[in-house]
Amino acid sequence: MRPEVTLPRFLDLADPATPAGKALIAIAIRGEASAADLVADTGMSRSSVSGLLTELRGSGAVLDVLRAQKGVGRPTLVHALNPALGVLAGILLGLGEIRVILCDAARQALAAEHVLLKVGYSPQDAVAISTEVLTRLTATLGLTPRELVGVGLAVSAPISREGTVLYGGIFPTWNGTRIGPLFAAALGCPVHVDNESHCGALYEMSFGAAKGESDFVMFKFDLGTGGAIVMDGKIRRGANGFGGELGHLTIDPRGALCRCGNRGCLDTYTGGNQLIAEAARTLGHALSLSEFVAEARAGHLGHRRLIEDAGEYAGIGLAMMGSSLNPPMFLITGGLALAGELFLAPMRASYDRHTLCRPSLLPEAQRTRFLTGTSPATDNVLGAVVLVLRQEMRVG
Amino acid sequence: MRPEVTLPRFLDLADPATPAGKALIAIAIRGEASAADLVADTGMSRSSVSGLLTELRGSGAVLDVLRAQKGVGRPTLVHALNPALGVLAGILLGLGEIRVILCDAARQALAAEHVLLKVGYSPQDAVAISTEVLTRLTATLGLTPRELVGVGLAVSAPISREGTVLYGGIFPTWNGTRIGPLFAAALGCPVHVDNESHCGALYEMSFGAAKGESDFVMFKFDLGTGGAIVMDGKIRRGANGFGGELGHLTIDPRGALCRCGNRGCLDTYTGGNQLIAEAARTLGHALSLSEFVAEARAGHLGHRRLIEDAGEYAGIGLAMMGSSLNPPMFLITGGLALAGELFLAPMRASYDRHTLCRPSLLPEAQRTRFLTGTSPATDNVLGAVVLVLRQEMRVG
Repeated sequence: MRPEVTLPRFLDLADPATPAGKALIAIAIRGEASAADLVADTGMSRSSVSGLLTELRGSGAVLDVLRAQKGVGRPTLVHALNPALGVLAGILLGLGEIRVILCDAARQALAAEHVLLKVGYSPQDAVAISTEVLTRLTATLGLTPRELVGVGLAVSAPISREGTVLYGGIFPTWNGTRIGPLFAAALGCPVHVDNESHCGALYEMSFGAAKGESDFVMFKFDLGTGGAIVMDGKIRRGANGFGGELGHLTIDPRGALCRCGNRGCLDTYTGGNQLIAEAARTLGHALSLSEFVAEARAGHLGHRRLIEDAGEYAGIGLAMMGSSLNPPMFLITGGLALAGELFLAPMRASYDRHTLCRPSLLPEAQRTRFLTGTSPATDNVLGAVVLVLRQEMRVG
Repeated sequence: MRPEVTLPRFLDLADPATPAGKALIAIAIRGEASAADLVADTGMSRSSVSGLLTELRGSGAVLDVLRAQKGVGRPTLVHALNPALGVLAGILLGLGEIRVILCDAARQALAAEHVLLKVGYSPQDAVAISTEVLTRLTATLGLTPRELVGVGLAVSAPISREGTVLYGGIFPTWNGTRIGPLFAAALGCPVHVDNESHCGALYEMSFGAAKGESDFVMFKFDLGTGGAIVMDGKIRRGANGFGGELGHLTIDPRGALCRCGNRGCLDTYTGGNQLIAEAARTLGHALSLSEFVAEARAGHLGHRRLIEDAGEYAGIGLAMMGSSLNPPMFLITGGLALAGELFLAPMRASYDRHTLCRPSLLPEAQRTRFLTGTSPATDNVLGAVVLVLRQEMRVG
């Protein structure tokens, strides 16, 4: 139910120039924070923090939560944002799927829904379905979409600086569509748009495995293959919005036709869609990427071979980036990364074999690091939320 | 002969806080400048510039030169630096060759020499030969190497941030050598070191075709294939110094062995050494890259085919950068670029065919631009001079 008392909005409180605002932003960045966390993050004294918490609790901005410890310890008292301070939505417009998530400003999920669709749905379908889902989900919180702080869209296609969907993505029919204004008109709240992989990188560098990293190349190996290039703390979109389209590095110019219209792109070797199609052909029945990965981990030899081969090709893609950008770190994410060493070991070996910058020939301290994403399945939709946090709430 | 009168050194005069220093730096950047150029560059009035020129001429820092116009115009009066203000050297340590150039602070060549060597010469050979040549060339100006403002070294190998030669270059035996201190000890003057292609990019972005460009990818197609990635005005050397090693992008993991120890690198398809070896095999006699290119331009069908095929593979290499960095501009340089459209047309067509970011599908104004280098044969050694200008003379 909608709260009876009108609470202040997050943005009215989160002024980094005030001690209370500083504490509120620190809680939003951590998700949940103990008093000790706030002392560390704000540099204020224990007694100042204690006073601020009393103030924030009194205004209803912050709630106390008893969080169970791992093991046998006593539960600890942590402080979280009151969800009523502002609700944000993230939407993934993916290949044959739409994911919607509602969060508070501390990225605590309030509601979520996953809709499977026919590949090739139109922008109008996307707006209609998203509006219906958002209306239903916000209603459970006593809100309407119009009252959202904002909506972030993670789109499985290159997006221009101006927010236009470009060719080469999963939606050939969406080419040239300005997707943001379509959604904003239907929802009546601010809408921010970026490429799905860029959203994933944004999430990982703001709150995930790559937090604090200013230079890395992300490869996302999922149903499709995507990526992002981060240099000097900025996601590089390139001159036309095609920056980080690493699934379309050419592995073999005479290879299989890719959905982008070229041949032998990395994605034709590593795309989860290709792998599960081949697995389905030998199994005689369809299966999802997560089922495929789970069966491989359980020992299915055919699935393992497909994953190993994909890892080898993935390493060639990484090697191209090694010999050109020579990044200090690769962030590997997506559903295939969840296969763990089945995928990662052949990928790393192949990287070493094909790049000029061979880790095995470098001193230990200088070797390229490999990190895996913290949320390979949901980094994109969480990243869409971060778009809103950054643009509308000064967090992230 | 050495001048009798002791002149001030460039650095003592080139103080950007003084009007005379500003004018002197403007002349150094242009190479030669008319009074009108100096009015435009410094924002000072015609009469102030005229007074400064009288002052600079009087101190001997600047010389007047009558430069013939193209066509039938009268010769114009331009102002150049007195070479005696300071002499700089650039040295290329290349595959089977050492090039030495002496310049003044306005990059006017004072002397040059080109030494052909056996591939595989040692760092000690390089120091001994360079010292002998520099001693002889500086003597013609009444100087010794010790009196040089500095020496820049352009090395055909990746160079670490600390100036160490890394594996993967043309000098497997040089691996781990700190080449700068070796030269500094022998010459007794400041020495600055960078990778050959990075020097080329530095020259082109300081004084050449890419002047004023802050984001581009350079490919150098010469005896070997190299490159440089420039983003936000900085040459990106990567975590370990392998940034921009574009000759080692993998074109075919089962291709021919590359000198780097991997297979099917771009350089095995586009390296001038490979092309002239194949041409020599069919001709029955050896020829240089420039002879090969000249004969192709004159109509030799076999040479043309080799250049066209190299252009097609070059386009695949460019395409990898298009789908990952999506740069607004490619700078194409090196001896093969001198073949003009014989090489560039198939390269551009192949780029369009293999990159996600296809220029032919973009509006005219958004298409990736292709520039060719102004000094494909000497950009590396001129870039070595720019290393010294930047580090020792605040120019460039």
